Amino acid sequence: MRVAAITAGVARSFLSVTERAVCVIGAGLIGGSLLRAAEKAGRTVWGTAASEATAGEARADGFDVTTDTDGALRRAADADALVVLAVPLPALPAVLARVDGVAPTVRLTDAVSVKVAVADAVGQYAPRARFVGGHPMAGTSASGWAAGSAGLFDGAAWVVAADDGLDLDVWRDVAELAWACGARVVPAAADEHDLAVARISHLPHLFAAVLAAVGAEGGPLALSLAAGSFADGTRVAGTRPELVLAMCEGNRDALLAAVDDALGRLGAMRGALASTGGLAATVRAGHDGRTRWAAAQEPEGVRVRLSGRAPLARLRDVGRAGKTVTGWA
Amino acid sequence: MRVAAITAGVARSFLSVTERAVCVIGAGLIGGSLLRAAEKAGRTVWGTAASEATAGEARADGFDVTTDTDGALRRAADADALVVLAVPLPALPAVLARVDGVAPTVRLTDAVSVKVAVADAVGQYAPRARFVGGHPMAGTSASGWAAGSAGLFDGAAWVVAADDGLDLDVWRDVAELAWACGARVVPAAADEHDLAVARISHLPHLFAAVLAAVGAEGGPLALSLAAGSFADGTRVAGTRPELVLAMCEGNRDALLAAVDDALGRLGAMRGALASTGGLAATVRAGHDGRTRWAAAQEPEGVRVRLSGRAPLARLRDVGRAGKTVTGWA
Repeated sequence: MRVAAITAGVARSFLSVTERAVCVIGAGLIGGSLLRAAEKAGRTVWGTAASEATAGEARADGFDVTTDTDGALRRAADADALVVLAVPLPALPAVLARVDGVAPTVRLTDAVSVKVAVADAVGQYAPRARFVGGHPMAGTSASGWAAGSAGLFDGAAWVVAADDGLDLDVWRDVAELAWACGARVVPAAADEHDLAVARISHLPHLFAAVLAAVGAEGGPLALSLAAGSFADGTRVAGTRPELVLAMCEGNRDALLAAVDDALGRLGAMRGALASTGGLAATVRAGHDGRTRWAAAQEPEGVRVRLSGRAPLARLRDVGRAGKTVTGWA
Repeated sequence: MRVAAITAGVARSFLSVTERAVCVIGAGLIGGSLLRAAEKAGRTVWGTAASEATAGEARADGFDVTTDTDGALRRAADADALVVLAVPLPALPAVLARVDGVAPTVRLTDAVSVKVAVADAVGQYAPRARFVGGHPMAGTSASGWAAGSAGLFDGAAWVVAADDGLDLDVWRDVAELAWACGARVVPAAADEHDLAVARISHLPHLFAAVLAAVGAEGGPLALSLAAGSFADGTRVAGTRPELVLAMCEGNRDALLAAVDDALGRLGAMRGALASTGGLAATVRAGHDGRTRWAAAQEPEGVRVRLSGRAPLARLRDVGRAGKTVTGWA
């Protein structure tokens, strides 16, 4: 039955870009979920894993996953498939060297949580690839093939990089893969993406870590009293440290700016508490920020044209306005 | 039926301390939940509200709640009931003056989130009261009578102040009220309580506020991408600012110490990020803290004796060890 589905998928891939085959490099939480979600959406999918153990787990679940990266990339080049790099940032150079070696002009995207560093690496190691960066903003504190699911991206934002000069045909591919996986498409320049995620993802991870350490420093009494606000505020401190480090350290410059903004606000708050004892400015600004965030949770959808004058600038404006791309005009 | 229950409750209050009547001053989220939980546990309960509107809501739900504070306190003195002050810290002096006026030696506890400031206020305004501080650590971001429920304290920590010199008979009353409401009893000196909650409750509220403000500063793109880590890390920034301010500003000295600990850690992290780019120390300390918190979530229960040598010092040791009092030895 799976073979029949795959065959049907391959046949359809010649008919419509919405059925393009997908090759996923990396079968961890994100790559494994992508394989499942794209397959469920009717795509032809195959992939690679870093270890034979992971590849075996994926095959046991009925997926065409091997450790033969060159073979998978050659097949992608032959089928004009979209290749998705779902490996941690430090593993990218080696994978990109293989892309350049066996599938140099392939359609290429990624699922890494920073975008400038990935674009730089592609420019250095696989400069001929038709690359459009991506970032599906979904995750759990779990990791590995077994933690993945076809529903991981449901309703999540999937940033598609919209810097000048990239291939609009591949942009369409990436957006349609995001939709096929149930995500909403948010266009953004790579550097704007990195600044935004520093504020709303990387800084929250560091705050959670510091909060957890300050709480633990209070000893058993403090830990036994810690509940609601502490439990929520430190949840992501439970994530595997290696994943947090790869994510945050790969976004150093943008993260420094966010940390400095936070330190400035905390310093002003500390000064007010020590002098007048008043925290109203801090608490009200926080309440206002949370209220604005809540109001932004049902973004307006817009249909866009990938032709005409400056389509990428128009796409960036959609993301900057907090909107999402829902289809083609 | 309720009248019959009340009459039976009063009769029982002469038989056993576990059936002691409870008078709750304040009918907001905490006071209203206390009335419901104690009544559900079979206690005779009555209370007061700051406004006729709130008192009317409570009466419509079948509770004996008025705005006549003097009357409620006189009745408590007559019945040797336990009076629970469930009003915000700034409202305490006025209420304590009424206690001193009409029920000066009443059994008295409170449900305010700081303990040193409350003990100071009692010493100043109602010095003859038989006072033992309390802090049921439960809450939601909602407030008011309608937001309350009999189950609010289920499984929550209820700190019972254990400073030298207080009335052990009232300590027993407060602990038994906490158990009747489904909470677990954690003894602590007032100042140790304040230092602990600064770390695990007040600082998390300020971190949430700063994180929400930093995220909002990123504009619509950042807010549209903010999900898991940001949503969790800023949840309590949605709490009514007045409640957060009363709580945090009332614990200024202890909070300053917690803020300085956090600022020190954030500064070290900022330095490491800017110099070597490494965040391992921060992230690993956070992961370790979160792991220790998770391990502390099923505290060991101990039975204690409220007599013999230094019972209050023994109680404080129970709380310091992260344990909970589950009964009398």
